[in-house]
Amino acid sequence: MIEDKIKKLGFELPEPTKPMAAYLPSVQSGNLVFTAGQIPVVKGELKYKGKVGFILTLEEAQKAAQICVLNCLSVVKSITGSLENIEQIVKLTVFVNSADNFTSQHLVANGASELLGEIFGETGKHARSAIGVNELPGDSAVEIEMVCRVKN
Amino acid sequence: MIEDKIKKLGFELPEPTKPMAAYLPSVQSGNLVFTAGQIPVVKGELKYKGKVGFILTLEEAQKAAQICVLNCLSVVKSITGSLENIEQIVKLTVFVNSADNFTSQHLVANGASELLGEIFGETGKHARSAIGVNELPGDSAVEIEMVCRVKN
Amino acid sequence: MIEDKIKKLGFELPEPTKPMAAYLPSVQSGNLVFTAGQIPVVKGELKYKGKVGFILTLEEAQKAAQICVLNCLSVVKSITGSLENIEQIVKLTVFVNSADNFTSQHLVANGASELLGEIFGETGKHARSAIGVNELPGDSAVEIEMVCRVKN
Repeated sequence: MIEDKIKKLGFELPEPTKPMAAYLPSVQSGNLVFTAGQIPVVKGELKYKGKVGFILTLEEAQKAAQICVLNCLSVVKSITGSLENIEQIVKLTVFVNSADNFTSQHLVANGASELLGEIFGETGKHARSAIGVNELPGDSAVEIEMVCRVKN
Repeated sequence: MIEDKIKKLGFELPEPTKPMAAYLPSVQSGNLVFTAGQIPVVKGELKYKGKVGFILTLEEAQKAAQICVLNCLSVVKSITGSLENIEQIVKLTVFVNSADNFTSQHLVANGASELLGEIFGETGKHARSAIGVNELPGDSAVEIEMVCRVKN
Repeated sequence: MIEDKIKKLGFELPEPTKPMAAYLPSVQSGNLVFTAGQIPVVKGELKYKGKVGFILTLEEAQKAAQICVLNCLSVVKSITGSLENIEQIVKLTVFVNSADNFTSQHLVANGASELLGEIFGETGKHARSAIGVNELPGDSAVEIEMVCRVKN
């Protein structure tokens, strides 16, 4: 079971986060699920704030990315009923709140990508973009959105 | 009729904007329509320019987001013939031209999300990412792209 | 043949770039292929670094965008076997590493869009977003991701 695997890795699948605003956490169309952008919220609290490379280290940002991607999985589960119904993680877009001259967005994103690999194996292998931005909602350090293919 | 609803809300569905460059305003693949990024252009004029949180207030940026999303609907209509053919707004990505320390991108994006809810009801409920960026084309305050599912 | 056309235009389809991190260069789901974000790497070397409008000119950035989009095609080909299997370029998202006050992201993106038009004709016409950002991986000048529809 995928959720057992998440626990064995030392993580916990959170309850789906409520959107900070007027939209849905995820929407299915055909066999694709698109998630809303997820920030590193744990039990209602934004855990990692500030610019990576200034306020936060790379290692902290990688932990933030792990939380974001677990939140993505949680909102996918809220639609599909179970993580077992994920056939393929298709795409991640990873936005990193970046200090001037911080250019390791791809290493931040590895926090998310490697965790998906550990959880899902082949099913977790995805295409990905890592992008630096100057601001994110609530001063979040990272925001990640996911597209995945699910059983229909 | 959806277009009547837009008028009752005090808005107007614009003519589809012409791309500022060498691409199409929207493309359909299967039953998904992907729009190009739309900026707050009204009758050929970019109405909201500059950084939100510095040049523009949150309220102005929300109005900009409303125009962007109406422009998205307009370019979807240019493919589907009618807004009645939209089955579901699937995803919005909202990029906000953000001053340093402006972290309410999600509230800017609400301008777009809430308008879609008012126009379409359940059909208008979408997944969404709100992202702060340091520059946008033509110094636009906001840029929004949409994915929606349409009748085939 | 599409690859002959690329050569006639004076370009070369590169070998698929290896991801800088733990993910795949492209993933197919149904008849859509999603690429990872591609940067202007040629034979393992990042050719265009730095902020457009400060370190790099518009013209240099357009050349960077051309390389990015050729890298996108290369990673699509690595899945589809041949560029002949592309039915439609659906969507480009073009992120431009932008100096303060550089607002011609759409003109940078034209480097990519116009090249696709020259290579593919109608098949190359796509929806597109052009976005300015303050940092990209490895200080890349441009990053482009592509969605395209392929023969199933």
